[in-house]
Amino acid sequence: MKRYEQYADEIGELIRTQALRPGDRLPSVRQASTSRGISPSTVFEAYYLLEARGLIQARPRSGYYVNALRAASANEPATAQPAPQSTHVEISELVFQVLGSTRQADVVPLGSAFPSPALFPLEKLARALTPAMRGLDPQRIVEELTEGSERLRRQIGLRYVVEGIAADAGEIVITNGAMEALNLCLQAVTRPGDVVAVESPTFYAALQALERLQLKAVEVATHPRHGIELDSLAQVLERHPVRACWFMPNFQNPLGSLMPEENKRALVDLLARHEVPLIEDDVYAELYFGLRRPPPCKAFDRQGLVMHCSSFSKCLAPGYRVGWTAAGRFAQRVQRLKLMTTLATAVPPQEALADYLQQGGYDRHLRQLRQALADSQARALRGIAKHFPKGTRVTRPEGGYFLWVELPAQVDALQLHRLALSQNISLAPGHLFSADRRFAHCLRLNYGQAGDERFDDALRTIGQLASAQTGA
Amino acid sequence: MKRYEQYADEIGELIRTQALRPGDRLPSVRQASTSRGISPSTVFEAYYLLEARGLIQARPRSGYYVNALRAASANEPATAQPAPQSTHVEISELVFQVLGSTRQADVVPLGSAFPSPALFPLEKLARALTPAMRGLDPQRIVEELTEGSERLRRQIGLRYVVEGIAADAGEIVITNGAMEALNLCLQAVTRPGDVVAVESPTFYAALQALERLQLKAVEVATHPRHGIELDSLAQVLERHPVRACWFMPNFQNPLGSLMPEENKRALVDLLARHEVPLIEDDVYAELYFGLRRPPPCKAFDRQGLVMHCSSFSKCLAPGYRVGWTAAGRFAQRVQRLKLMTTLATAVPPQEALADYLQQGGYDRHLRQLRQALADSQARALRGIAKHFPKGTRVTRPEGGYFLWVELPAQVDALQLHRLALSQNISLAPGHLFSADRRFAHCLRLNYGQAGDERFDDALRTIGQLASAQTGA
Repeated sequence: MKRYEQYADEIGELIRTQALRPGDRLPSVRQASTSRGISPSTVFEAYYLLEARGLIQARPRSGYYVNALRAASANEPATAQPAPQSTHVEISELVFQVLGSTRQADVVPLGSAFPSPALFPLEKLARALTPAMRGLDPQRIVEELTEGSERLRRQIGLRYVVEGIAADAGEIVITNGAMEALNLCLQAVTRPGDVVAVESPTFYAALQALERLQLKAVEVATHPRHGIELDSLAQVLERHPVRACWFMPNFQNPLGSLMPEENKRALVDLLARHEVPLIEDDVYAELYFGLRRPPPCKAFDRQGLVMHCSSFSKCLAPGYRVGWTAAGRFAQRVQRLKLMTTLATAVPPQEALADYLQQGGYDRHLRQLRQALADSQARALRGIAKHFPKGTRVTRPEGGYFLWVELPAQVDALQLHRLALSQNISLAPGHLFSADRRFAHCLRLNYGQAGDERFDDALRTIGQLASAQTGA
Repeated sequence: MKRYEQYADEIGELIRTQALRPGDRLPSVRQASTSRGISPSTVFEAYYLLEARGLIQARPRSGYYVNALRAASANEPATAQPAPQSTHVEISELVFQVLGSTRQADVVPLGSAFPSPALFPLEKLARALTPAMRGLDPQRIVEELTEGSERLRRQIGLRYVVEGIAADAGEIVITNGAMEALNLCLQAVTRPGDVVAVESPTFYAALQALERLQLKAVEVATHPRHGIELDSLAQVLERHPVRACWFMPNFQNPLGSLMPEENKRALVDLLARHEVPLIEDDVYAELYFGLRRPPPCKAFDRQGLVMHCSSFSKCLAPGYRVGWTAAGRFAQRVQRLKLMTTLATAVPPQEALADYLQQGGYDRHLRQLRQALADSQARALRGIAKHFPKGTRVTRPEGGYFLWVELPAQVDALQLHRLALSQNISLAPGHLFSADRRFAHCLRLNYGQAGDERFDDALRTIGQLASAQTGA
């Protein structure tokens, strides 16, 4: 890590712990340079980075000030109040329609679930493939172990150890991306007709998984910054025979919310009292903009009830389809379900990733990726502030690559999606993120595509289309 | 193809069409050499090949004779009569126990589902990986198309065309091995509680899939040489509300049976009259010992009711986990289920296989593989004839790498499996191949491992253990 990054991180931590509060003035460049014994250009670079991260802002001829928006934003969306009853899920058809329509070539993919491919070390990974397979004992290739490559599981296990998470390598099962991990975990702990608690709004794939397994969804109020509202969850657990929860405590899709550590602890305790398993979708955790990786709920689990699911698809190797779950007391059940459904995960991507991780370039790549995404978020927020209609509210996540945009109530996001698509821009309309389609005036916007030169123009176009719908 | 192979194939075809009948004497080497204008050594090699394939045998000082065993073997197992009622399936626990126990190192894997890794061009495939990925547009990697690599689907589509099968490239979905294809197809056409017709004995993974989806199995009598008995199937269709069939018309696992072409036609017609979809597991078809690839039922389907499933795992690239289905009228439903469960198949193995297929070495590899397996079968049959107890019956499949061995009724195959395992030999006991565990004195034996120097000794050991159980 470079000196200016270190200094920026130190100040970031002061802001996070509220030692520096919104509106506070930062030391001048000269003061900081003298007092810390670093060059003025290092201080400049650190301040520039903090500004890009949205933590501070410059006021002309006055200096740098801690940004007020980060703490409790004036234009932050409100927490939605979900329906109290559980509902059968019928969302798939709509999801397929929307996803299908956005796959045309030349579309600016703001509705995509993946960041730009330019952000990944695809060349380096490609180079790892052939040597990784040539070095492998042929018998190991044929055996096709259901639980996955031992080397890769050891590498993943090491990362758990570094993060202080007690996950035995024996409970890790390698899967075809996190998607398979989540689906296997869900099937491992439910039967048709069961009730599953999800966030509101929630990732449409969770809704589709419930629909496929004929499960009922009950939605839990989810704060756009802090995630699951524990009071709401406690009520749901009292009122419904919940058999499992499917949550994303770190940088939730689509809100980007991050549960504070104490909430995660309380969540794990609450679920332990009710003996309810938690399927923890943690695919965005490595894309944090703060000082360190936010811990998953798994870190606080003592009962083996948390089934931690993640993958390399969002942070290293899209298309390689390598995910995993550390499924606690359900690990054997998950492994057997995998044996019955896809047998094993492809060996070449696993071995290439094991080599890549062993060689140690992963953390450097992650630092660059986080920086690029933080910069992109700032750029996207500026564009939205400039182009979107008055009354627009937007999240300001501390990681990941999604913004959740709440447009004025008159806007129909599905119509906006169609209009935008006719101008070669894809969007994810709010309709996709709830079983009862309550988020009809909301959008999920992927800013991991901000490197696309058409990005700013696309934001302007969406803003114009939305404004037209408000009659402004 | 070499000259002696051509000549052997010609004679093989004469035997198949019964122009040459069991017991007929072949022309002497000198006669054949003169009349065909080929060298005596070419004739010798052809006869040697035919003998290895089990089609002819030498009688000392007399010449070569068409083998009687191929047509209607004296020691062929009888067709089992399955229970007439449909049954709930509870086989998984036993399957896991047996498979788990056979995965120890240093075991002679006669219970394995895969041939020896030495039979595959693993080095050549490994070399294809890096260039294939470096040549790919990064955007194509991130898009992770659910239906799979377009190049690979085109290559698979070409093979369908060559085989005269009308399968549109648009109906092909690439999957994580055939296992995922079969499971997706099954889920696409059934709901919990439905009845599905399977062979008897049947591949345990089919039984596990039924169990996982809470389906009921009804078993159809299956001839060890001709496969599904159409009369038995017609009765089953009259008596049960069958929602789907899961059959392996080519080299069925475990019997190795091959349905004659006219039976396949009749099967497709019968199912069309009842509007019942056929899930066709066709993973062994390329491993034929005859003149040409036996056609799948898909070749005779005019209604889009046949869901053809196959993979490269058994004939080219184990561990790459690349399979597919051409799912006819259910293609879209299958694709959507895949999107919801594993999203997409890993890109690197698909691209490497597309390159490999384009370069054209596949058919040469297949010829070598078939030859190796045909030789191995002859070797395994010799070993069984020599070492197994009197009264043993055994199939003599025209392809694949499994023998189905019916031991004297006193033998308990599960006990035999345990005893063999204690001597480092794995077996697949007959218990695994039926929902009501009727095949307690049968074994599936993988002769794709005959290259293992311990193979002959292992057969002798099994023969001794089985003989001890018969009290002989």
